[in-house]
Amino acid sequence: MFQKETYIRRRQALKKKIKKGLILLPGNVEAPANYAANTYKFLQDSTFLYFFGLDIPGIVGLIDVEADTDCLYGDDFTIDQIIWTGPQPALRELGEKVGVIGNTYTLFELQSVILKAIKQGRKIHFLPPYRSHNKMQVKNLLGVSSRALENYVSVELIRAVVSLREIKEEEEIAEIEKACETGYRMHTTAMKLCRPGINEREIAGAIEGIALRKGWGLAFTSIVSEHGEILHNPHYTNRLKPGRLLLVDAGAATDRCYNSDFTRTMPVDGVFTQKQKDIYNIVLEANNNTFRLITPGVTYQSLHLEAAKVIATGLKELNLLKGSVDDIVQNGAYALFMPHGLGHQLGLDAHDMEDLGERYVGYNDKTERSSMFGLGSLRMGRELLPGHVLTVEPGIYFIPQLIQKWQKERINAAFINYDTVADYLDFGGIRLEDNALVLKKGCRMLGKKRIPITPDEVEETMRQEAEF
Amino acid sequence: MFQKETYIRRRQALKKKIKKGLILLPGNVEAPANYAANTYKFLQDSTFLYFFGLDIPGIVGLIDVEADTDCLYGDDFTIDQIIWTGPQPALRELGEKVGVIGNTYTLFELQSVILKAIKQGRKIHFLPPYRSHNKMQVKNLLGVSSRALENYVSVELIRAVVSLREIKEEEEIAEIEKACETGYRMHTTAMKLCRPGINEREIAGAIEGIALRKGWGLAFTSIVSEHGEILHNPHYTNRLKPGRLLLVDAGAATDRCYNSDFTRTMPVDGVFTQKQKDIYNIVLEANNNTFRLITPGVTYQSLHLEAAKVIATGLKELNLLKGSVDDIVQNGAYALFMPHGLGHQLGLDAHDMEDLGERYVGYNDKTERSSMFGLGSLRMGRELLPGHVLTVEPGIYFIPQLIQKWQKERINAAFINYDTVADYLDFGGIRLEDNALVLKKGCRMLGKKRIPITPDEVEETMRQEAEF
Repeated sequence: MFQKETYIRRRQALKKKIKKGLILLPGNVEAPANYAANTYKFLQDSTFLYFFGLDIPGIVGLIDVEADTDCLYGDDFTIDQIIWTGPQPALRELGEKVGVIGNTYTLFELQSVILKAIKQGRKIHFLPPYRSHNKMQVKNLLGVSSRALENYVSVELIRAVVSLREIKEEEEIAEIEKACETGYRMHTTAMKLCRPGINEREIAGAIEGIALRKGWGLAFTSIVSEHGEILHNPHYTNRLKPGRLLLVDAGAATDRCYNSDFTRTMPVDGVFTQKQKDIYNIVLEANNNTFRLITPGVTYQSLHLEAAKVIATGLKELNLLKGSVDDIVQNGAYALFMPHGLGHQLGLDAHDMEDLGERYVGYNDKTERSSMFGLGSLRMGRELLPGHVLTVEPGIYFIPQLIQKWQKERINAAFINYDTVADYLDFGGIRLEDNALVLKKGCRMLGKKRIPITPDEVEETMRQEAEF
Repeated sequence: MFQKETYIRRRQALKKKIKKGLILLPGNVEAPANYAANTYKFLQDSTFLYFFGLDIPGIVGLIDVEADTDCLYGDDFTIDQIIWTGPQPALRELGEKVGVIGNTYTLFELQSVILKAIKQGRKIHFLPPYRSHNKMQVKNLLGVSSRALENYVSVELIRAVVSLREIKEEEEIAEIEKACETGYRMHTTAMKLCRPGINEREIAGAIEGIALRKGWGLAFTSIVSEHGEILHNPHYTNRLKPGRLLLVDAGAATDRCYNSDFTRTMPVDGVFTQKQKDIYNIVLEANNNTFRLITPGVTYQSLHLEAAKVIATGLKELNLLKGSVDDIVQNGAYALFMPHGLGHQLGLDAHDMEDLGERYVGYNDKTERSSMFGLGSLRMGRELLPGHVLTVEPGIYFIPQLIQKWQKERINAAFINYDTVADYLDFGGIRLEDNALVLKKGCRMLGKKRIPITPDEVEETMRQEAEF
């Protein structure tokens, strides 16, 4: 955790933004995998962690805005438990570490405090729960039905939390940088291991091992696949075949739970073919160009469209697209090749604050989410502010099912040379992803060194031996 | 998965054991970590996997005993999803792979089938759900309250499932052997990495990486700690100090979700001190002696007590215990040094079938669970059968909080030389764990080669370099 002043300051800022009522912030509990005692590795709720800093299961935070009190509810270990767990600090001591002085109580006491507040007609602010356990917990505490729960979610609290969490503080950026360093090691190791005949799983396991050695572990389930064109792909079942491209989308989470998120794509053989390089360099230019354009005040939606222009221009040169670049972009024809968004915010979550709702995190009154295929998948569209941390992740994919669908339905038929596209049906996909910090002017790429990204750099790294 | 005949045979055997009614076996769903889309690595419910073999989230199995039908309920991917996920087999095709021919339906259809059965007064058998999601699912399907849910759990089904799952089939044993091979690699790597100054986390991450490269991953959260005396210890925060012992309790899960579970203890310095070796050799003898005694018909409770005798004898020689060995064991004085059980069953779960209730899995009408401290922690006490797979994991620990408590409360004061014990307060703990298969006569240690275990073998392995 950070120094207690950090959490005191954050809670003060939150209280200033919420007019009145109680703010209920339940932390996560252990999540059983295949029986109650065999739990997944504990991951704290990010918003609880942001305001209360304690990375321990089963604690609930409660802030009383009018009374200006920050309280923690949780149960101390008994002496019989301590025999098995070793000495454990009391909640009172834990609270002091995050600036909660005195206001610590047992979980049992929480219900009556909430009940009293409800009887007094006070508002209980809470965020949308995303785990079954927390849904039940909030539902039971508030005495509302499962169905009604989402109606009671506090949009005022969502907006307040987003406005704080979206601006990364210096110590948060330092953590993300740490996650980037581990990401560097993960991706260069993948490059060093990649070769025909190796299983995707060997590479996935090796880079996850690195993330686990350096911090909490993975930022998210890695994609390690010679089928980069499959965008949701958490499986590692292939033995890498010569001629394919391996796409690795993976990031690390530090022990303070901040994340990095990088993608690199490499030729299984260690050397790009000219055909691969042609597509690769378009994606690389879309990535680089975004970094040139990121600056406060521009919307990320407009930068998505700029990347689309780079891709449209490149694919036109390769005779895959036709017509004017502006028309291709305006009609969303490029989205056949890049159906996802340019990026998202990054922080305590890999998709930062996604649980709070992308309409509040990635969009606002000024920037509306598009309903177009492709652009509509963009998670972050709003204007950029200094302190935003973003992923920049353009890609070009040849997705047989999507190509087939469009061709059959004659979607954007005027812009697509399906004859040429047919030559790429077994190409796979390329994505190149880096992480950006928006500065007062322009932006900075996060990470000490950029992970090898030019075709030459990638090929050079692939020639090296992996170290333990 | 295995061949479909395996699952057909298992379901047939289950139907023979259940007189009538419907058997509801919900598979697991994805479990969100810090937002809905960021899920933990999927782990299927073990009993669903045992009978239906499909390692895919969101499927429910339903067996109608009287009608002799095995049905699967789940939703197919839409074409819009397949654009993102790549081609996906339909539930109908998946069903065929596990011998469910034709009887596949959408999840929506499940509710009415259950409702109809309830109206007809038919019994719906289900097992104790251990995840919040499945508790809600079963509760909603059956229309009972959360509180009442456990009253409706089918003990008949629990007993039937235990009687099948506890006898490991040949193909299951082959899977456990695979998990043992990965376990060998994990533990020898830990030995090779262990040295003063390295972080526990480096070793934990490295061995988890091996488990992930070879299969599903870890059997359970590893213990990698220079505080082996802390029995529940999922943290890796220490930098290893000279003079300490490192305890590593870790196992692998294969991609068919079968587990291994081993513990080794090693001197951080690479060489045991005489004091360490004296305790170590007692634990080693307790382990070896158990393997000599395991055979069908004996209870594991009696073997726990035999191990206790070995420990009592050894600790008496070191002047830590006094009095007769039989009295020490009968009064549970040895449990100050080994407060846990000798072992548990192992299979699709590391603590196999723990979710079904240890009273049905580890005990039966003939063998009752003890209420004594130590022996009462034994998960598996009943008489052994050919096909049982067990862990054998004796240990000796010096737990300051427990020693303090016993000394203060004068528990077993007649048997314990607290003056001598005081010299061991910073000793830590030693556990040595292997996996046994009960044969028609005697037992077999699982794993191609035994993981280095004698002090000489451990020291020799620690001198070797870790390979990637």
